Amino acid sequence: MRWSHYFIPTLREDPADAEVVSHKLLLRAGMVRQLAAGIYSYLPLAYRVMQKIMAIIREEMNRIGGQEFLLPALNPREIWEESGRWTAMGDNMFRLRDRKGADLCLGMTHEEVFTAIARDELRSYRQLPQIWYQIQTKFRDEPRPKSGLLRVRQFIMKDSYSFDVDRAGLDRAYELHREAYCRIFDRCGLKYTVVEASSGAMGGSESSEFMVRTEAGEDMIVVCEACGYAANLEKATSRIAPIEDAPGPDAPEEFPTPGVRTIEDLTVFPGGAPADRQIKTLVYMMSAEDGPRPLLALLRGDHQLHETKLSDALGGVAVRPAHPDEIRDLLGASAGSLGGVRAKEIARARGRELRIVADLALRGRRNMTTGANRDDYHLRGVDVERDIAVDQWADLRIVNSGEGCPRCEGGTLEVFKALEVGHIFKLGTKYSESMGATVLTPEGKEVPIVMGSYGIGVERVMAAAIELHHDADGIIWPETIAPFDVIVTVTNIKDDRMREAGERLYAELRGAGFDVLLDDRDERAGVKFKDADLIGVPYRLTVGKKIADGAVEIFQRRTKRASEVRLSEAVARLRELKAQSRP
Amino acid sequence: MRWSHYFIPTLREDPADAEVVSHKLLLRAGMVRQLAAGIYSYLPLAYRVMQKIMAIIREEMNRIGGQEFLLPALNPREIWEESGRWTAMGDNMFRLRDRKGADLCLGMTHEEVFTAIARDELRSYRQLPQIWYQIQTKFRDEPRPKSGLLRVRQFIMKDSYSFDVDRAGLDRAYELHREAYCRIFDRCGLKYTVVEASSGAMGGSESSEFMVRTEAGEDMIVVCEACGYAANLEKATSRIAPIEDAPGPDAPEEFPTPGVRTIEDLTVFPGGAPADRQIKTLVYMMSAEDGPRPLLALLRGDHQLHETKLSDALGGVAVRPAHPDEIRDLLGASAGSLGGVRAKEIARARGRELRIVADLALRGRRNMTTGANRDDYHLRGVDVERDIAVDQWADLRIVNSGEGCPRCEGGTLEVFKALEVGHIFKLGTKYSESMGATVLTPEGKEVPIVMGSYGIGVERVMAAAIELHHDADGIIWPETIAPFDVIVTVTNIKDDRMREAGERLYAELRGAGFDVLLDDRDERAGVKFKDADLIGVPYRLTVGKKIADGAVEIFQRRTKRASEVRLSEAVARLRELKAQSRP
Repeated sequence: MRWSHYFIPTLREDPADAEVVSHKLLLRAGMVRQLAAGIYSYLPLAYRVMQKIMAIIREEMNRIGGQEFLLPALNPREIWEESGRWTAMGDNMFRLRDRKGADLCLGMTHEEVFTAIARDELRSYRQLPQIWYQIQTKFRDEPRPKSGLLRVRQFIMKDSYSFDVDRAGLDRAYELHREAYCRIFDRCGLKYTVVEASSGAMGGSESSEFMVRTEAGEDMIVVCEACGYAANLEKATSRIAPIEDAPGPDAPEEFPTPGVRTIEDLTVFPGGAPADRQIKTLVYMMSAEDGPRPLLALLRGDHQLHETKLSDALGGVAVRPAHPDEIRDLLGASAGSLGGVRAKEIARARGRELRIVADLALRGRRNMTTGANRDDYHLRGVDVERDIAVDQWADLRIVNSGEGCPRCEGGTLEVFKALEVGHIFKLGTKYSESMGATVLTPEGKEVPIVMGSYGIGVERVMAAAIELHHDADGIIWPETIAPFDVIVTVTNIKDDRMREAGERLYAELRGAGFDVLLDDRDERAGVKFKDADLIGVPYRLTVGKKIADGAVEIFQRRTKRASEVRLSEAVARLRELKAQSRP
Repeated sequence: MRWSHYFIPTLREDPADAEVVSHKLLLRAGMVRQLAAGIYSYLPLAYRVMQKIMAIIREEMNRIGGQEFLLPALNPREIWEESGRWTAMGDNMFRLRDRKGADLCLGMTHEEVFTAIARDELRSYRQLPQIWYQIQTKFRDEPRPKSGLLRVRQFIMKDSYSFDVDRAGLDRAYELHREAYCRIFDRCGLKYTVVEASSGAMGGSESSEFMVRTEAGEDMIVVCEACGYAANLEKATSRIAPIEDAPGPDAPEEFPTPGVRTIEDLTVFPGGAPADRQIKTLVYMMSAEDGPRPLLALLRGDHQLHETKLSDALGGVAVRPAHPDEIRDLLGASAGSLGGVRAKEIARARGRELRIVADLALRGRRNMTTGANRDDYHLRGVDVERDIAVDQWADLRIVNSGEGCPRCEGGTLEVFKALEVGHIFKLGTKYSESMGATVLTPEGKEVPIVMGSYGIGVERVMAAAIELHHDADGIIWPETIAPFDVIVTVTNIKDDRMREAGERLYAELRGAGFDVLLDDRDERAGVKFKDADLIGVPYRLTVGKKIADGAVEIFQRRTKRASEVRLSEAVARLRELKAQSRP
C-alpha cells in the first residue's frame, strides 16, 4: 500500500472529547471516526487490524471444531418471547417494527436463534457435540456509550454456542473454549486474567471473564497474587476477621437517637455503636410481572452492597433502590431509621409483602444496633437470627483491597480496574428448556440439550491492545495484529535515488510476504516519522541520505532501537528481527 | 472437515414453500434456514461459499486500489436528511428510535456515511482519487420478500464509492469497477450480461447492471444479439416502424361510443380505430411534499407504460396509478373515456393543475382517436401536437421482443428474465453537493467531489451460481466458490481398510492444500452419494471395495464421469483434473 493513495487521516492533536488512551489514539491514528454516540466508522487501518484479530479467532475456533455460521441481526420478537428475554432485555435492546407492523429487534446476542436451529435440526445424541460460532455485528442500546470503542452501541462479536447431551460434555466444551480464548488473547498480544464472573442476563451456572487490567476498564476485578484466585468484584468473596459479640439482652431495646440518619452518625452518637456492630438496612425494589416488589437487603454497617450480587441472589432479577416515598409507604420511617426487626409485620399491616435478604457476614451476630422503623429511634441488643425473619442468606458485600483471600491461607486480595474482552458461560438448559430443544440419549430418553455460550468483543481486543501497548508517540502494535508488518519511509520522495530504493524495498518486501506500507508522500521526514510512530507499525525501514552508501535504517517501534543495514540485506534482517520478537 | 461432526442438515424432499431452484437447493443442501420472512440464517456450508465469494471480491477490489472500511448499520436520521433520502426511501427503510428517542435507521446503502467521511477528511485534489469499499450487511424492508435469497430484507453487499475531482476521474473509476466486476463474476462462474439501467433512487447520470439470465430473475432485460446492445427493460428503447397518418379534420370531432371502455373495445366499435391509431390516456399521481399531484401519461393505444420510465422522466419521483375516484374528481369521466385534449382546462376548472407527459411514439401523429373526458364519448381527428398541451416528451413505452434494435441496423431485440447481481452508478455530484463535500482543484477552486457508487449482492452471486449450475440431483458448484474442493466418501465406515484409506486420503489432500470433506458417517453408500451430489462438491473420491486392489474412484460432479485411480496417485490425478477444468 502506498501512503500517498491510502486513506489514513492522522491528527496532530489529541481530540478534545476523548478521554481514554485507546480512544485518543484510534482517532489520532486515523483509524476510526464517530458517526453517532457509540457508533463508529472503521477506516482502512482499523479494519486491517480487526481482520487480523478475526483471522486469529477463526483459526482458534476452527481448531476446537467450531463451525462458522452467520445469523441475522434482525430477529423476530417471537423467539425472544420464547426465551423470556423480550421483556428482560429492557431498554438495552433496539426494537423496531417492519412495514407490516411486526415487532423485530436487533440481536444483542444469539442464544435464541442458535437454540431455535438446534431445536429444529438436532434429534439425537449422535449429532452432538456441536460448537457453532459466528463473527457478527451486535447491537446494544447502551445508556451511556463512552470511551471510544470500549462501550459502543454496535460492535463485532465472535459468539459461539456449544450443544451437548450432558453436563460432562458442557464441561469439555467450556474447557476447550477457555483454552482457545487463552490462545487467542495470547496471540493478540494481550495480558489478561481469567476471573469468576456473574452470569447476569445470560443465566446458567458458571461463567468466567477474560479481563485486561487497565485504568480504561469499567469493571473491577479482585485478585490474590498468592494463589491466583481471581473474580469480578460482582462475584468475588473474601475472608474477613470474625467478630466476637458480647451477649445481649433477651430482646431488642428501643432508644431515642434524635437526628441520627446514617451509620456514621450512630458511631459518634452517645450510646451508639461502631459501624461493625450496626446493621445496615437498604430497601430495594425487584422487577416482577405485577409490578415492583420491595425487599430489605441487610449488611454489616461498615460493608457496601454490590447490586449485581443482590440481583444474582434473586435469580438474576433486576433490582433498583426504592424511592424515599416508597420506603415511607412501606415501613412508615425514612431511610436513616430502618431495620429488619418486625419489618415484615409493619409492611404487612400496610398491605405489602416484604422479602429480607441478609449478607453472610451478619450470620450469628448478636447484640447489634439497627433502626427501629421509627424516625429518630434505633434498637440495640438485636440478635440477627433471633430477631429478624431473614428469608435468604447471601453474599451481598463488596470486597475491598487488603481483605483475606477466600481460597488460600495467607493471601491478601487486591482490587483493580479491568476491561472485559471475553466471557464464557455454562448456560446449562436454560434456553433448551424454555425453547424446547431436546435430543434423545443413547437410552432413548428425551433430554434438553446442555448448552454453553462464549463471546469475544473484536473491537475491545483492538482497543485493549492499544491500552496495553502504547507510548507518548502513539500505538505500538503487537506484531500479530499490526495493520502492516513494516513501513518503508522514503525521507525525500523527490530524490530519485531514495525513491527508487524505496520502491525496490517495497517490491522485495511484498514479494517476501510482508504487509508493507510505503510512505511515498511528499512530506518532511519529521512528519513521516511522527506518523509512523503514531500508527504503530512494528518496523520502519528508512531510506534516507545514506542510500548513497547503499545503507538503510531499521527502526523497531517497540524498543526504539535503530540500526543500519545494507539495502540488499534489509529483508533478511527484518526476518531475523521478527523471528526474535516472536513470543 | 468430517461430515460426522459437521452440521449439514440435508433434506430428502423439496420444501413445500420454495419455488425457485436456488431456494429449494439451498434448503435441501442444508445451507440456509429461514428465521422470518426474507431473513435467513446461513449455516456453515453456505457461509463457506460466501466467504470464497467475498475473498474473490476483496482481491479484485484491492487490485483496483480499493480500501476496505466497515461502516455502521445503525445510521442517525440527520445524515439521511441531508441527502434528502430520509423521506425518499419511504417504507423500504427500517427505522427505529433509541432509548433517548433519537431517530435511527438501518443502512440500505452507504452513500450518506461515506460522503460524510469524505466531507470531513478530504480537502484537496491531491488526496484523490479514492476508492472506498466495504463488505457489510444491508437492510431493506422489502414489501414482498421471496424466492429464498433472491429478495430478502437483510443481506451482505460489497458497496464501493469512488471520489474524483472531475468527470474524467469518475469515468476512469467507473471503468475500473466495470472491469473488476467482470473479473469477479467470471471468477465466480457466472454468465452475465452488462445492461444499461435506470439509476432510480440513487440518482446520477448513468448506470449499468450485471444481469444473469435466469427464469428465477425478477428483472427483464432486452438484448440485441447482432450488436450486443443490452438494457434493462426499464431503460431499453427500440426502433418501431413509422406510421403514416392520413390528414385529419381541422379540429377533433366528438362521437358517441356507448359502452366503449378499453382500447380493445374501440378497435371493434363501428367507426372506431385500430389500436395503433388510438391514444392511451393513463392518470398517475406523483409524490410531492404537499401531497400527490396528478399527471397524464399518453401512449399509443397498442403500447404499454413502464412505470419506472415514467418515474425516471420525472426525475426519479415515485408515481402510482390514480384511484378511480381521483380520476373522476380530476376529469369528470371514468378511466375508459379519458383523453389529453382540453384535459388541463377541465382539471383547472376543478382546481387541479395537470401535467401531461407523452411517449415519443406519439410525436407527429395526427388523425388519432382518444377519449373525450366524457363517459361514452370519444374524439377522432386528434393531432397530438396541435390538440394536446404536452409538457414533456419522453420514452415511456415497454419494449417488446421482436422490435428493432435502437443501435444497429438489422438487429432484433429479445426480452429475457434476469437476476441483478451487480450495479454500478455514476452518481456525479448529487451527494457531494447536497452534503457539502468539496475539494480544492489544482487551480484553488472549491468543487464538489465527483462520485460513483458500485454494489454487488453476495447472496445473489451464490444463488445465481446455483440457478446456472445445477441438475436434478443438486448443485454443481463452480470450483472457485465450492464449499469444499473434494469430498472423500468412505462407502462403509465400519470396514477398517476403507476407513483407514479414507483417513489417509483425507490427510494427504489437506496436506496438499485442498478443502476436503470426509464423509465418515455411518450411512449407506447410496445416501452418501446422493448427499454429495446434492451439496455439489466438484470432485468425489470414493473409497469402496476396490480398495482391496489399492484403487479408488474419482467422480467429477459436473460431467458425472468416473474413473479408477491408484490410491497413491489420487491426489496427483485430482490436481490434473482441477487444472484442466480451469477456464
